[in-house]
Amino acid sequence: MRRIKVTVSYDGACYHGWQVQPGVPTIQSTVEAVLTEIEGAPVHVSASGRTDAGVHALAQVAAFDLVNPIPEANLRRAMNRLLPPDIRILDVTQAPRGFHPRYDALAKTYEYRIWRTEVRPPFERLYTHHHPYPLDVPFMAAAARLFQGTHDFSAFAAADGADALGRSKVRTIFSSSVWESGDLLFYRVRGSGFLKHMVRLIMGTLLEAGKKNLTLPGIEMFLQPGFPGKAGPRVPASGLFLLNVEYETDAPAVAAEPATTPPDA
Amino acid sequence: MRRIKVTVSYDGACYHGWQVQPGVPTIQSTVEAVLTEIEGAPVHVSASGRTDAGVHALAQVAAFDLVNPIPEANLRRAMNRLLPPDIRILDVTQAPRGFHPRYDALAKTYEYRIWRTEVRPPFERLYTHHHPYPLDVPFMAAAARLFQGTHDFSAFAAADGADALGRSKVRTIFSSSVWESGDLLFYRVRGSGFLKHMVRLIMGTLLEAGKKNLTLPGIEMFLQPGFPGKAGPRVPASGLFLLNVEYETDAPAVAAEPATTPPDA
Repeated sequence: MRRIKVTVSYDGACYHGWQVQPGVPTIQSTVEAVLTEIEGAPVHVSASGRTDAGVHALAQVAAFDLVNPIPEANLRRAMNRLLPPDIRILDVTQAPRGFHPRYDALAKTYEYRIWRTEVRPPFERLYTHHHPYPLDVPFMAAAARLFQGTHDFSAFAAADGADALGRSKVRTIFSSSVWESGDLLFYRVRGSGFLKHMVRLIMGTLLEAGKKNLTLPGIEMFLQPGFPGKAGPRVPASGLFLLNVEYETDAPAVAAEPATTPPDA
Repeated sequence: MRRIKVTVSYDGACYHGWQVQPGVPTIQSTVEAVLTEIEGAPVHVSASGRTDAGVHALAQVAAFDLVNPIPEANLRRAMNRLLPPDIRILDVTQAPRGFHPRYDALAKTYEYRIWRTEVRPPFERLYTHHHPYPLDVPFMAAAARLFQGTHDFSAFAAADGADALGRSKVRTIFSSSVWESGDLLFYRVRGSGFLKHMVRLIMGTLLEAGKKNLTLPGIEMFLQPGFPGKAGPRVPASGLFLLNVEYETDAPAVAAEPATTPPDA
């Protein structure tokens, strides 16, 4: 029995998110079905975290146990041959027996993409949120920096889900930045962990800031411990990408870097 | 009654091509339904040419007559509001009464995109053909140049369709080039007009050349007048984009230029 770590990229447009749900296609159930075929027995797959319906991943990390002695390179090829083309295994390695992609993650990075001009190209419709209205981008960038540090993110958590059960909603954000490139606005956030809907609620808050409906002290208020209200609104899933997940065992430069990087990164 | 010329971009993945067909969604029927709603009466739309199922367009040109006096800028907004997000109207202008997007076209440019490495990103699956095997790219570039000039393209025409009715299959190709950029191979061809399946049959022939299954004289043979055989095979539709259509009335720099341009363009 080996513990296997895989890096998986997926287009979330046709899936009801990562987690298995009865009667609907999910990334987890699709990957598990393929591994069960390879293993000849049920295989359970854990991920670094759930992604919601419509959310994409450049490099999600998942892990599972396998008895089949197939070499890692062949396993990657076998999985990609059996998976649909909107789910791709980028990397397969053997991991320590106790490796868990969620509990062992040191940091995760998400990116949100907003198309800003009036006519959004048809090819961008599943990979951006369309907001063709004026935005104060420098103000949004200043607002984004407020999220850096350790805060109580209760105001940025979904009302439902596991996080609603009274667990700590304190998380640490290592970097949080907004920038423009061409017709797109990018928001990228790297943190120790994220609550359900947290990135989309932060992005919705930053959009309100960009419309000048929120002040910087107004946003800081949402981050006060015990603040009873909710921030937002929540922006659509289609603009959100899980960029990468970092582990202690990673080689130094393993972090996925997309083509566009923030100017102050 | 005005003659209206529109530039339209579409993601062909969910459509059975441009032309109206009973019982299936097509670009033409979708655009006509929207215009019929705006006009309050049936509107017929002509295009510069049909695109096949799954073929994309960065800038297809179409035209129609309209009685409704709506200003051009408002018409663009109204159409984009009613159209699904995978069809976008980029530009609306008034055209001379007799304007026909097909008969008046001076040149059309197509591009075909091939993903070359083993694992194709999930986001590329609808917009590239996947060919993760060795190719002699300089040889393909030399083969591509053979298509330039005026030739009988009978060997590069679909066996069915209007072109099968004995009409001339002589066309003039102004430029035909292959180049690499990152993990992609590009083929771009600009010509006076194209037969049904012609670009995909040329691309299939160039792939055979890249695999060294064809020689340059072997390809020249396909272009001899009256050559009775068929070239190919035909590559899938997903990698094919109609880049732009050129007219005498265009402003000098109207041609759509994608991010990547051939080195010898």
